[in-house]
Amino acid sequence: MSQRIYEDVSVEGHLIDSLIMSHIMDDIVELGGEFETLSFEVGRTNDDPSRAVLRIIGPDQATLDRLMTAAQERGAVPLNASDAQWKPAPADGVFPEGFYSTTNMETWVRLSGSWARIPGAEMDLGIRVDPDARTAELVAINDVRAGDLLLVGHKGLRVIPVERPREKGAFEFMNSAVSSEKPKAQIVNEVAKLLRKTKADGRSAIAVVGPAVVHTGAAPHLARLFEMGYLTVLFGGNAVATHDCESALYGTSLGVRLDDGTIVPGGHEHHLRAINRIRAAGGFEKAVETGVLTEGLMYTLVKTGAPYVLAGSIRDDGPMPGVITDVLQAQAAMREYCRDAGACLMFSTMLHSIATGNMLPASTTTVCVDINPAVVTKLVDRGSFQTVGVVTDVGLFLESLADELAR
Amino acid sequence: MSQRIYEDVSVEGHLIDSLIMSHIMDDIVELGGEFETLSFEVGRTNDDPSRAVLRIIGPDQATLDRLMTAAQERGAVPLNASDAQWKPAPADGVFPEGFYSTTNMETWVRLSGSWARIPGAEMDLGIRVDPDARTAELVAINDVRAGDLLLVGHKGLRVIPVERPREKGAFEFMNSAVSSEKPKAQIVNEVAKLLRKTKADGRSAIAVVGPAVVHTGAAPHLARLFEMGYLTVLFGGNAVATHDCESALYGTSLGVRLDDGTIVPGGHEHHLRAINRIRAAGGFEKAVETGVLTEGLMYTLVKTGAPYVLAGSIRDDGPMPGVITDVLQAQAAMREYCRDAGACLMFSTMLHSIATGNMLPASTTTVCVDINPAVVTKLVDRGSFQTVGVVTDVGLFLESLADELAR
Amino acid sequence: MSQRIYEDVSVEGHLIDSLIMSHIMDDIVELGGEFETLSFEVGRTNDDPSRAVLRIIGPDQATLDRLMTAAQERGAVPLNASDAQWKPAPADGVFPEGFYSTTNMETWVRLSGSWARIPGAEMDLGIRVDPDARTAELVAINDVRAGDLLLVGHKGLRVIPVERPREKGAFEFMNSAVSSEKPKAQIVNEVAKLLRKTKADGRSAIAVVGPAVVHTGAAPHLARLFEMGYLTVLFGGNAVATHDCESALYGTSLGVRLDDGTIVPGGHEHHLRAINRIRAAGGFEKAVETGVLTEGLMYTLVKTGAPYVLAGSIRDDGPMPGVITDVLQAQAAMREYCRDAGACLMFSTMLHSIATGNMLPASTTTVCVDINPAVVTKLVDRGSFQTVGVVTDVGLFLESLADELAR
Amino acid sequence: MSQRIYEDVSVEGHLIDSLIMSHIMDDIVELGGEFETLSFEVGRTNDDPSRAVLRIIGPDQATLDRLMTAAQERGAVPLNASDAQWKPAPADGVFPEGFYSTTNMETWVRLSGSWARIPGAEMDLGIRVDPDARTAELVAINDVRAGDLLLVGHKGLRVIPVERPREKGAFEFMNSAVSSEKPKAQIVNEVAKLLRKTKADGRSAIAVVGPAVVHTGAAPHLARLFEMGYLTVLFGGNAVATHDCESALYGTSLGVRLDDGTIVPGGHEHHLRAINRIRAAGGFEKAVETGVLTEGLMYTLVKTGAPYVLAGSIRDDGPMPGVITDVLQAQAAMREYCRDAGACLMFSTMLHSIATGNMLPASTTTVCVDINPAVVTKLVDRGSFQTVGVVTDVGLFLESLADELAR
Repeated sequence: MSQRIYEDVSVEGHLIDSLIMSHIMDDIVELGGEFETLSFEVGRTNDDPSRAVLRIIGPDQATLDRLMTAAQERGAVPLNASDAQWKPAPADGVFPEGFYSTTNMETWVRLSGSWARIPGAEMDLGIRVDPDARTAELVAINDVRAGDLLLVGHKGLRVIPVERPREKGAFEFMNSAVSSEKPKAQIVNEVAKLLRKTKADGRSAIAVVGPAVVHTGAAPHLARLFEMGYLTVLFGGNAVATHDCESALYGTSLGVRLDDGTIVPGGHEHHLRAINRIRAAGGFEKAVETGVLTEGLMYTLVKTGAPYVLAGSIRDDGPMPGVITDVLQAQAAMREYCRDAGACLMFSTMLHSIATGNMLPASTTTVCVDINPAVVTKLVDRGSFQTVGVVTDVGLFLESLADELAR
Repeated sequence: MSQRIYEDVSVEGHLIDSLIMSHIMDDIVELGGEFETLSFEVGRTNDDPSRAVLRIIGPDQATLDRLMTAAQERGAVPLNASDAQWKPAPADGVFPEGFYSTTNMETWVRLSGSWARIPGAEMDLGIRVDPDARTAELVAINDVRAGDLLLVGHKGLRVIPVERPREKGAFEFMNSAVSSEKPKAQIVNEVAKLLRKTKADGRSAIAVVGPAVVHTGAAPHLARLFEMGYLTVLFGGNAVATHDCESALYGTSLGVRLDDGTIVPGGHEHHLRAINRIRAAGGFEKAVETGVLTEGLMYTLVKTGAPYVLAGSIRDDGPMPGVITDVLQAQAAMREYCRDAGACLMFSTMLHSIATGNMLPASTTTVCVDINPAVVTKLVDRGSFQTVGVVTDVGLFLESLADELAR
Repeated sequence: MSQRIYEDVSVEGHLIDSLIMSHIMDDIVELGGEFETLSFEVGRTNDDPSRAVLRIIGPDQATLDRLMTAAQERGAVPLNASDAQWKPAPADGVFPEGFYSTTNMETWVRLSGSWARIPGAEMDLGIRVDPDARTAELVAINDVRAGDLLLVGHKGLRVIPVERPREKGAFEFMNSAVSSEKPKAQIVNEVAKLLRKTKADGRSAIAVVGPAVVHTGAAPHLARLFEMGYLTVLFGGNAVATHDCESALYGTSLGVRLDDGTIVPGGHEHHLRAINRIRAAGGFEKAVETGVLTEGLMYTLVKTGAPYVLAGSIRDDGPMPGVITDVLQAQAAMREYCRDAGACLMFSTMLHSIATGNMLPASTTTVCVDINPAVVTKLVDRGSFQTVGVVTDVGLFLESLADELAR
Repeated sequence: MSQRIYEDVSVEGHLIDSLIMSHIMDDIVELGGEFETLSFEVGRTNDDPSRAVLRIIGPDQATLDRLMTAAQERGAVPLNASDAQWKPAPADGVFPEGFYSTTNMETWVRLSGSWARIPGAEMDLGIRVDPDARTAELVAINDVRAGDLLLVGHKGLRVIPVERPREKGAFEFMNSAVSSEKPKAQIVNEVAKLLRKTKADGRSAIAVVGPAVVHTGAAPHLARLFEMGYLTVLFGGNAVATHDCESALYGTSLGVRLDDGTIVPGGHEHHLRAINRIRAAGGFEKAVETGVLTEGLMYTLVKTGAPYVLAGSIRDDGPMPGVITDVLQAQAAMREYCRDAGACLMFSTMLHSIATGNMLPASTTTVCVDINPAVVTKLVDRGSFQTVGVVTDVGLFLESLADELAR
């Protein structure tokens, strides 16, 4: 590397045991850069934070820019802070070339010498600035308008990484998939503790659910969690609402009797008949009001007034009234609830869980429960230290959780 | 069963080895009915069809109606044929109570004494009749309008079940999931034979693809199949188009370099930058025209003029221009191609594959390839004798298939 | 097929709904033969058996022999019954060429004109005859001695297939893998009913268990089933005994604390220390006697006197005293219990479950519970109508089952 | 923590990016200890090693012992080196209480003031010392004899951890499971490179194979790798040898024709007939000699003289002659080859792969290929940085690998 340009950064925190330093070093080497450790003050005890100053070295400016962007996403801050830079969007729905793409972590922008915190945190968005007001906000690519000023490059940005929880006895399973071969009782207790705390803090708790929750007979247990106020918002699709109403109206889910598990010949028609009944009644609220729907998860949501977002998908029959068939509108509806969520529990749906995970801040504790280890791994791999995966039977898990919280 | 009412039906075909009789008997017993075999002429050799007359007995009219509906879906025909019955739709988007819900098999309706074949075949729809014109057609619940006349009950209907292929040496794996522990070379040959025949017949062949086709490096092999004309229509989502363009513009898919499998730090931004570039260019066609997009699957589709449907989902970033964000509109676009498809190949996408499977006639030969046995099992379980599942590595499979067809 | 030789067979039973006829027809066509249905008397109602006479036709004697063997395994009986044929074993541990390989179904042999039932039923063995005593018995290839008379060909044999249970409300899930998406409460009830009946009949119930039963914290629930007498024999390996003793001595399983699910650094040594302690004590019985082992599954087996077979495998550490390290000796020990088992429950072990499944008669009701659908499918595919697979969390399932039976 | 006792250790290497420091810190906190960083000299560039001195603090001696053992397994060395300590084995097959349980890493013992390297490296064994000769060796619990001197505690031990490879472009996938969604071509190349290097170094390469290698039709490709000398030892069980001979003698594997994938009715008997033929011939070598066996994997092993270990298991039929039915004897046979292996490739067998993984030194590069992600994850989780998992179709992978190496 004959030619060498560099920039110096500082980084602070539990650099070693939160893996911050090793991640930064890995990224630099992987991206074709080098580093020198200018100083490294290691915390004396396991409670003290550490502080390092690194010189990040690249062969050219483009590489150095990439190195700096990567390091900043890990929490590094340039020693010579400069203001953020921006460019106008060239057209509606188009970011300027070189736009800054967000992480799901708390982010600050330096505008005219002072740091402004951007409200919310969501990955894969742009940052729109108002230089006069010295403010910045997140914006989705589809919502940007020609002339909007969007951040470009990596200058004037500070990202606050979520640190791994250090106290023993907190959620011990953070950022890992709990194997099907681990004891489950303790995990049920930890999730119960999380929901109790979220409720006590007055924060919302989102349940993201797939139709298997109904198929496995777990919907009544989920409903109890809403009745007790431990869950406050439901995200799902047409299928979970449909099979829930099918079970309320016909006693089956996908044609399988929930009381004895037998297949009802012709029962495959029940879901379409359930959709038709709710459409005829004029929607879930009306169906509850007029006595068409007298039990089940959707009934409980209507009765408790808990908000829900049902997002459409191309495999839907019907759909049920209230299902948002435009996916961008559905995302917008979900985004509202994601911004302030205190906790998020995901059950048996890869599609809705990934969609929700895309919108949640890294700081929201998220628990993904599925019997399929591939789904759990996929969600945990995308997540932060706040994400926990549990491989187990969703039906039996929800029953245990509701029982624990009902005590 | 003190009170007994009954109806007599006849059924014809390879009743024993196509399992038609055993399915009818199972359904009757399961639904709480009984039967008497009034006659059973068994084909003397394995080529001769059999013919049976059954008396189907139920405790009450409602049960008997269910018994008859179930038997008719297996191909039974009432001895005393009567005309179909209908009722008007009570409101827009609502079927009349008791509506007939379709199967994915060829269906005939008896109107004023004569039998009319319904064009197309798709499950979970209604049948709208024009009694004056003596015609009938399929209609989705969302498309029905108040006053439309919809078939109700099971009278005046004849369903033609798809029989299991009997000749040895045809597709031997029909209606089963081919385990990962089976030899794959022969399956590649069979699928190649299917595509050759479909092309020779001048029929369309749909490819339903998920982003893993790009991640595994198989997109160039899929593109070759379009270039050679063995595949003619593509169904996918925002992700497959996005990662394909990401690979064309940045050499990565989801941030992983396709040439050496290494992760590019910061590469997780590439997909959003790829979306932005195509949006800036004004869409795939314009991007090819202006030289922004010079290779890949989407490039090949544009160059060959092969039609495609990209259906939106709530986990989409962007989306790419051309993605249909309303799921009902996306279904309508897909339905057009499903009606006449000669073959359908599904690769690595449960969402789009189930959606497509919902719309295909039972007579369309369908091959589902995925490395996850759960996905393959789910799709095959929903299918007819024409559905084949293959558990294997999609990347290696597509390469073998394209090589075989290029010979 | 110019040259045609044939043999006529009769077959009786619920030929259609038990799929006997369709299986026979499939086999004949698959093996390159043909058939003519000489007569087919179909049972008038669903309770009446049917009776058919088939002419099985082959192009040559070798093919016809294969056709006849296949048909007889489905229950067909030649109209012209002839005596069984045999040859001497050419050497110790070697069957004569053309030996008859057994199924797991009840089998009768015709010796000097009279039919003798062979005691027991196990697949993949030979049949050793004593022509003078007119008796026959099963013999494993390893146990055969030079000069022993072994059955060859298919003549003089009658196999009694296990029919599918017809009554509604019995075990509804026979011969199928219960998906993870089905309600589990009813299955727990059915298994409880099976164990109650087996106990009431005074028959043995085998539990085949892998170490995940201990890892998931389910061992105490399994122990309760032994204490209550619903399970009477345990099959396992070194691992389940080792981790059970590890949990009794150190509170961990594979180094994971069972009370709170946390990993104990250095805990990976616990299993070897547990083995050492039990070896030092002189075995499980002595360890219980001397107060070294005071709780757990092995403790319960010793206390209740329930027999167990621990079969060694190449991945064993230690092993524990009492583990049978020679696999043929271990098979012999297991075989003793398999012959008369009234029920068999398999939990979280593919190796031991397949081994046990190989030895069980087709008439023993077998339930396989695993969270991995691949394991369940593999076991159910090998089984008869008496095999049920359940995809669920073994820990939560065993807890529910023990609670249900404790009521 | 009122009472505090401590010991000081030094640790050297790429402490941060090889995660050595974070692992040590995690272990200390997890085990209820504390630490102080007395000094930490961080390597200036990414090539320079770092060096730290830590004070490890525990509440009591027992805890401190556990803390020290854990730290030493990560490579920490006590500042005040002392000699190793030992006790006599109390009985045959029993270690003294408090015995040191080995890791799979290079280990040194301090005897009378000087350090001796222990030959080999295998986990879960004891260390037997000869104080007079100042030597030490590994010993399995089953091989220990009363009075043998065994190391106890953690004093006088130094473990050399395997560091994560740092150079870019080496095996990039180390210590991780390669998802089914990654491109496979590069991985095939890396494995080919590994085998070329191992061969060039004159070292052995073990193939551990399950029967699916035969079922998928991949056995001929595996045989080519033995013919070319890239694989030199085979570990397997009775099943792989049986189905290989079944395919050579009958063209089927588990009754499925390998040329067209169809099931041969009655073909389930083929494997037992194949076993009988090889037993009749007097073993594999005799079967090749007398022309009974003329192709296949076992044939190739005999012809090339490559050694093999076939280890028995309780699910074996037969078994084939040469299968070692005592599992401790089979382990001993495998152990011989593990000690010096340059590389190890594992295909489609969890049982044999885990057994082999238990015996391999951490420094042996190991590649595990399976279509089941659960198997791959399980093996990689047990492994060191030298273990790579690949989720793909074994049949297609072996074909690509053999083609690449044949070029």
